Amino acid sequence: MNGAEAVVATLLTCGVEVCFANPGTSEMHLVAALDHQPAVRAVPCLFEGVATGAADGYGRMTGRPAATLLHLGPGLGNGLANLHNARRAATPLVNLVGDHATHHKPFDAPLESDIDALAGTVSGWVRRCTDARAAGMHAAAAVAAATAPPGQVATLILPADTSWSPAASPAPPLPSQAPTPVADDTVAAVAAALRSGEPAAILLGGPATRAPSLRAAARVAAATGARLLCETFLARLERGAGLPAVERLGYLPEGARAQLHGLRHLVLVGARSPVSFFAYPETPSLLAPRDCDVGSLAGPGEDVISALTHLAEMLPPAIAATAARARAEPPAGELTGETVAAAVGALLPEAAIVVDEANTSGLWLPAATGGAPPHDWLTLTGGAIGQGLPLAVGAAIACPDRPVVCLEADGSAMYTPQALWTMARECLDITVVVHANRSYSVLEMEYDRLVLPQDTEGHRRARRDLLDLSRPDLDFTELARGMGVPVFRSADAAEFTAQFAKALAEPGPHLIEAPVPPLFGPRRIS
Amino acid sequence: MNGAEAVVATLLTCGVEVCFANPGTSEMHLVAALDHQPAVRAVPCLFEGVATGAADGYGRMTGRPAATLLHLGPGLGNGLANLHNARRAATPLVNLVGDHATHHKPFDAPLESDIDALAGTVSGWVRRCTDARAAGMHAAAAVAAATAPPGQVATLILPADTSWSPAASPAPPLPSQAPTPVADDTVAAVAAALRSGEPAAILLGGPATRAPSLRAAARVAAATGARLLCETFLARLERGAGLPAVERLGYLPEGARAQLHGLRHLVLVGARSPVSFFAYPETPSLLAPRDCDVGSLAGPGEDVISALTHLAEMLPPAIAATAARARAEPPAGELTGETVAAAVGALLPEAAIVVDEANTSGLWLPAATGGAPPHDWLTLTGGAIGQGLPLAVGAAIACPDRPVVCLEADGSAMYTPQALWTMARECLDITVVVHANRSYSVLEMEYDRLVLPQDTEGHRRARRDLLDLSRPDLDFTELARGMGVPVFRSADAAEFTAQFAKALAEPGPHLIEAPVPPLFGPRRIS
Repeated sequence: MNGAEAVVATLLTCGVEVCFANPGTSEMHLVAALDHQPAVRAVPCLFEGVATGAADGYGRMTGRPAATLLHLGPGLGNGLANLHNARRAATPLVNLVGDHATHHKPFDAPLESDIDALAGTVSGWVRRCTDARAAGMHAAAAVAAATAPPGQVATLILPADTSWSPAASPAPPLPSQAPTPVADDTVAAVAAALRSGEPAAILLGGPATRAPSLRAAARVAAATGARLLCETFLARLERGAGLPAVERLGYLPEGARAQLHGLRHLVLVGARSPVSFFAYPETPSLLAPRDCDVGSLAGPGEDVISALTHLAEMLPPAIAATAARARAEPPAGELTGETVAAAVGALLPEAAIVVDEANTSGLWLPAATGGAPPHDWLTLTGGAIGQGLPLAVGAAIACPDRPVVCLEADGSAMYTPQALWTMARECLDITVVVHANRSYSVLEMEYDRLVLPQDTEGHRRARRDLLDLSRPDLDFTELARGMGVPVFRSADAAEFTAQFAKALAEPGPHLIEAPVPPLFGPRRIS
Repeated sequence: MNGAEAVVATLLTCGVEVCFANPGTSEMHLVAALDHQPAVRAVPCLFEGVATGAADGYGRMTGRPAATLLHLGPGLGNGLANLHNARRAATPLVNLVGDHATHHKPFDAPLESDIDALAGTVSGWVRRCTDARAAGMHAAAAVAAATAPPGQVATLILPADTSWSPAASPAPPLPSQAPTPVADDTVAAVAAALRSGEPAAILLGGPATRAPSLRAAARVAAATGARLLCETFLARLERGAGLPAVERLGYLPEGARAQLHGLRHLVLVGARSPVSFFAYPETPSLLAPRDCDVGSLAGPGEDVISALTHLAEMLPPAIAATAARARAEPPAGELTGETVAAAVGALLPEAAIVVDEANTSGLWLPAATGGAPPHDWLTLTGGAIGQGLPLAVGAAIACPDRPVVCLEADGSAMYTPQALWTMARECLDITVVVHANRSYSVLEMEYDRLVLPQDTEGHRRARRDLLDLSRPDLDFTELARGMGVPVFRSADAAEFTAQFAKALAEPGPHLIEAPVPPLFGPRRIS
């Protein structure tokens, strides 16, 4: 048994059953080990950002880590953006990075670079294996680190010689770590604040947006009159008919500030004190009112569900409010972000996993789907666009019996379009909707917010070529066909609705190109 | 004038005329400044690896830096692989990375990450601007750093507030730095070694593979009987009829070792002592024979051309041997790597810029084009695949009057396919040939070299699914059409030749999908 075989066998023993891979020469023994261990599903990816984003999606949906397999520093570099998103999502993820053999590193061969420094920027745990005999032990430690609450990216760097040299044997799993209990005093203090009669809200984030926590939090809200809010960008929100409805904080600081206006108590549950996504001149970063007391019931690594349950028990019994079943009307007329959202709301299947990277075009999606059958909603946790298609790959592999609906923006889709090929290769049941507005519409908005107020020379009609995705128009039907995914293009809302229904009904991946006018900036549809 | 305007105006004053950009909200003032300064050509890229690879291509062809414009840590992450290649190419490049406003950074907003750590892995110079009034000065320093011999990546991090706040004025250029002169003693010692009568070779790399250095080196070779070699992966090799022919070191260590066998003197000129690209068990990393004296005439930052000229003057006069004009025969029959190479050799136009990322399929290219009219040959300097298409974008913008021929492997092309859209948007005269062998063929070879010799259980017929690019086949004609690039697909060598001629004759970009059997591994063409 060599080091690579010990790593793969250990991962399997520790519950890692999937590896999203884009290997190179220094990973050949790991490829061989995967090839001979069919119980670990090796999923080929044509680009590392697909592998890391898919591992994020898998971890969000299962709570267990998938592994990646990346090729040295440049391979890790290509995977960094989606590892950044995974870090922000607190996803358990074992990030395997091959490296030159230990004896080869001092010679600074062309692919040599500082892998450790790169890994440190996205990982909660980084270790370099220096001895094949310890490879299994390091793999077990990586899984333990990845799954330590609330979950994190654990990077294990494997020099080629630690893969090809003889190893001892696979290592057994390390004991799994439980979330930290929350002190009774903390719960009591929160209960007192919420019963003060002053305006209060509970802000849910991280692990607190899953159904059991939502139900407990909604009971607390019903008992105290506190409002129920959640962070803007969530790793996984369970929602839909029968589940508590939670108000998401807005993306723009003025919107979020209005939502928080007047609050005297803000209780954080798995969430962080809200901050503006971007900075603007003369605008404070913190969003809560100055005289609002911001306190935490439970941080992301703490036992969120026990703390919420305990809190609910300290309060008078109350019935949690839940969203009523309500289907959006199937839309007609022009295809817009709003009519796309209505069609999604009208047809979203029970237990769907929705990956939302529709950005400005997706403005109407939450409202249109709030009463749909229960589903999961996965969002862009770290702001690094190019997450949606890979996340959908991972979610589909995690949950083969559930339909995945990936709601994409055209600009974002172009960072990781290679994910479409993996969808086809693995026959994944994913319906991709590309909102094709032919622009970086969010930047059209931000340009107007940031630049025009300072512009004393009347440049309003600047060319803004850098924000324009037309000339030529991207044709997503051609792109998807080029990677083996069946396609539709919709001319109007009724046609989109029919195509969306058809894509949902058929197994395997489909892509629908939905040309929509941009929410901000000039209309460029040709 | 704000900081962004000072940066753009300073870059222009310092000779930076192109910016390859994929901006976000924190770069809106830089976008506005570019928009209002048309003398700096802002080139939109849909993915950051396209921007950084294009800046590399531009810098290689002009000797002057282009700027990039990237969005925070994830944007830099996406650009790292091609910055790694640029670092290995010693390309002058000004890498602009936006960041959150200084006052916003402590709040750890979702896009916050350690940009400085990432930048350090690929940059020879990193600076963070902390005051808009110094922004112009930092931009001038970045250009000076980028162009310090032999050239390097200089990263300037610009927090949003240093872009939007008032600046003083643009800064003037800093004095440019000359290459370090080589001591007379060093030249004399090399002359003595080469005249020793013992077997000797000159190994050219870095700045020494341009025509003036090649001619001087060839005179030295003719005067002394030394062999003329060059590194395997060169930033820019001038070659073809009338130029000295140089033997490239082989990719595999056993090949390179055979080329160097028996040498007693190896003189490095702009090159590093040759090392194996990858490590293999029981194989030393250094390639020169143990008893070979490896010495340097001039390192990459030294005055290579003066040293070579001086060396030639110390030796008896001699006529440099040059490659004879010789055209490959237009091929017929099956389309293979060999017949594609013959067609390229038969038709390559004078002054073409060839970007070579054809990998295993390109084995026959150097021989088939050695007697073609003079041209430049740009290669994968850092081993991070996904360089070819972006490099072609930059070369075409650098040299609008020269045809660019981009020879791609299918696997490599899929890392940065978004470059095709920029080719169409900017109407660049690039002919892309995708060698579609439906596999990571180089890994099929490396698997056989690395894994099989250790395999005691007879796994030869392993599935190797991770090395297989079929199921479904990638259709590059669909992919390119989806990004607005006219396409061909060739059924045989004669058709390829006709299509290649047509693509060269027409302005603007074209892509030819050339299905070829893989050099290694099973044939998977469907």
